[in-house]
Order: sequence, then C-alpha cells, then structure tokens
Amino acid sequence: MIAKSTAAFLIDALVFDAYGTLFDVQSVAATVERLFPGRGAELSQLWRSKQLEYSWLQSLMQSPAQRREDFAAVTAHALDYAAEALGLSLAGAARHRVLDSYLDLSAYADAAPTLARLGPRPRLILSNGTRAMLEPLAAATGVARHLDAILSVDAAGIYKPSPRVYQLAVDHLNLLPIRIGFVSANAWDAIGAKAFGFTSFWINRNRAPLDRHGPKPDAVLDSLSELPPLLGSA
Amino acid sequence: MIAKSTAAFLIDALVFDAYGTLFDVQSVAATVERLFPGRGAELSQLWRSKQLEYSWLQSLMQSPAQRREDFAAVTAHALDYAAEALGLSLAGAARHRVLDSYLDLSAYADAAPTLARLGPRPRLILSNGTRAMLEPLAAATGVARHLDAILSVDAAGIYKPSPRVYQLAVDHLNLLPIRIGFVSANAWDAIGAKAFGFTSFWINRNRAPLDRHGPKPDAVLDSLSELPPLLGSA
Repeated sequence: MIAKSTAAFLIDALVFDAYGTLFDVQSVAATVERLFPGRGAELSQLWRSKQLEYSWLQSLMQSPAQRREDFAAVTAHALDYAAEALGLSLAGAARHRVLDSYLDLSAYADAAPTLARLGPRPRLILSNGTRAMLEPLAAATGVARHLDAILSVDAAGIYKPSPRVYQLAVDHLNLLPIRIGFVSANAWDAIGAKAFGFTSFWINRNRAPLDRHGPKPDAVLDSLSELPPLLGSA
Repeated sequence: MIAKSTAAFLIDALVFDAYGTLFDVQSVAATVERLFPGRGAELSQLWRSKQLEYSWLQSLMQSPAQRREDFAAVTAHALDYAAEALGLSLAGAARHRVLDSYLDLSAYADAAPTLARLGPRPRLILSNGTRAMLEPLAAATGVARHLDAILSVDAAGIYKPSPRVYQLAVDHLNLLPIRIGFVSANAWDAIGAKAFGFTSFWINRNRAPLDRHGPKPDAVLDSLSELPPLLGSA
C-alpha cells in the first residue's frame, strides 16, 4: 500500500544500481584475500578503482577505431592490471576463480525485503554489468522476483554516468525523471543520476564523505531499508 | 636539424601534456607532507585520484543543469574531499598554500632541453589546466620560450580523454593526427591520444605496467630525452 500523504518524495518507480547497492561485492574481496593473504584488500581496491577508471575512460574516448569493452572484459582487464601492478601472479584457474566470484555474490539482507515493500511500483536494475552477469545473479539471490526489468548499459553503448545510460530507464518506464527514484551505494552514480534529473538516493553504508563535485543526491541513507518510509511505503 | 632518414616516426609537430609530463608535481606532495607529516603520500594520492575522477565524471555527465568546473575548481574540491576522507583538517592559509603549490612547480630537468631539440617543429602544451594556471608556470620554468602555443581543454568544454580535446591541437596545427606526436606521462592520456589518432608516446618514468584498456601508445620511453632521437632530432 502506498500512503502518499506521508511520503517525503513522490516516486512512481525505482531504479537500482546492482554492484554494491543490491549485491554485496565483499565476497569478491574475500576470494582475493584467500589467494593472496595480507594483500587482498590492496588488490581488491586497485582492481575496483581500475574497473571504474576503465569504464569512464572508454566512455569518454568513444573512439570509432576502438570499441568499448563490456563490463565483463573491463573487469577482467582491470584485475590483470591490478595484479601486475602489485607484483602478484594471477593466472589460469585462480584468475578464473576470482572473476567468477562476481557471478556468485550475495544480496544484502535488506535488498529483497526493501524491493518487496516498494511494490507495486515498477522496480528495475540499471547496471554497468552485462545481462549475462546480472540475470543469473538476480535469479540466484532471489531479488529477481521483486524486479520488473533488468537493464544493462550495453543497450546504450556507454557506461554510467553518461545521461544516455540513465535515459534507458526513462524510455523503459515512460515517466518523468523526477518521479523516478534512483538508488545507488556509489556516490558518483547517485550524483550522475541527480545531474540527469532523477530523484536520487545515495546509500552510504560506510558513512563516507560525499564527493565534492556535481549536484547533491536528494537524500543520503544508511541502508536500503530506510528508503520505503521516505516514499510512503510501509 | 631534422635528419628524417634516421627517424623511427615521421612527426611534424609535438603536443605535450603538462602536469607530470613537463612539470614535476612532486613538490605538491612535498608541501602536503610538510603539513601532515607521515600522511602526505596518502593525501596526495587520494587527491590526485579524485582530481582525475572528478574531471572524467563531469565530462561524462555533461549535464546542462550542472556546468563543468574548471581544473582549478576540480583540484580544490578534490583536495577538500581527500582531506575530509582521511580525517585531516585543512582550511584557510594552509589550504591555500597546498593549492598554490600547483602554480609553483619545477619543470623536469630534461623538459626545456628536449623541447629545444625538437624544434623547429611546432611544440604545444595541451592540458586539463586553465590558461591562468599554465601560462605563468610555463613562463616561470623557462619552457615557454620553446613553446608555440599553450592550449587548455577549456576551449573544448570537456576534459581529456575526450576526442574534442585532442581535436583542439589538430585545429591549431592543421596537420593529420598521425603526423602529430602526443607526449604524456599519464598512461590514460597517452592511450586516449592514440585512440584519437595521434602518434602517441608514453613517458613511463616509474616503469609502471601499461593499463589494460584501449590502444597501446606507439612507444614507451623512460624519459623525455629519449624522444628526439626517435624523431630524427639530434
């Protein structure tokens, strides 16, 4: 039931980032730490940082001679760079095990319950990941049954925070951006979504400072479960 | 004298990145370390990483509602974020001193001699920096007298590695991109320049691994002084 009279925001549909927002990538770091005891945190951090850097740079270069790689390829190449830069040898079965850990994540404990409470509004995923990465993950974690669609940036041919990516959700929902709530645990994504025109919610689980560029998200929450009351959902 | 018969590359003009390529940003890190003994490296690293991140994100967002900030503003906001994230208090005169250290860099010892050897070809700077940041620095370090022009990304309204930035040099020089040698110590910039169509040289002073995305630069050099022989310049 939607009790609009008590809602702080009027939102007709919700769009969720996937990695770090609905799905906990901590198990990727755990796999890395098992392979390289004492170096796991360092490798995971550089890997993640290069994964994002490559996605942004490839989006900006937009070279006709050099096609954008999909997120599975970007993720693998970022891992190879990070291992080489830290002098860690990673190949063969071990490398595959690390990459496969992206396909075997847990959902946050409040992900499925929050999605359930936000119905009957349409609820989507809009992620940098490929459909081949996202769909089995959503099914295995049980969040798929609370989702109306899973959109990949691949349909736009560019990564977040390009407005062409966020437009995919508008085209799918046929709603005004301001009536769409965009939810991400990645500050840069929440800022990009706000710049696009969505009503934007940053899930700041680690109480990090907000980045000092771009427009501020409309609300900063400690967890997904704080979202439904703001939208008038029980 | 240009002895083209011995040149590995046929290059009619040279375009240089500024920060890290011609100008040594190490003194920025030293200023930070004096203010926060033992934390300087950490702060400098996060600052630099946020400075680039903000420049890429603002370029990708391209929001009509939210204007791109110039590099002086991006640099200041990235510093503020980095200090806050690391729990370091930085304000007032100390903050200004750190930011001002960007205006008071040294040129690398081989910067002016290399530029001199590469003449009489046109030699340009193409930098993320503003003209107000770049011109006094080029004058004070003595590299300006070996330069034909200083181009700022501000004329394109977007940051590297957008092809619109690299196009500024083509428009200025009126040469085919492949006959323009682009020189950067930033791997992502050398890769972006190669994707654009320049002949690209990566100055890899720290023998870092090459990033695993995009096209490879045409040559990887340990220092600027290795460049003139490759171009048939004594």
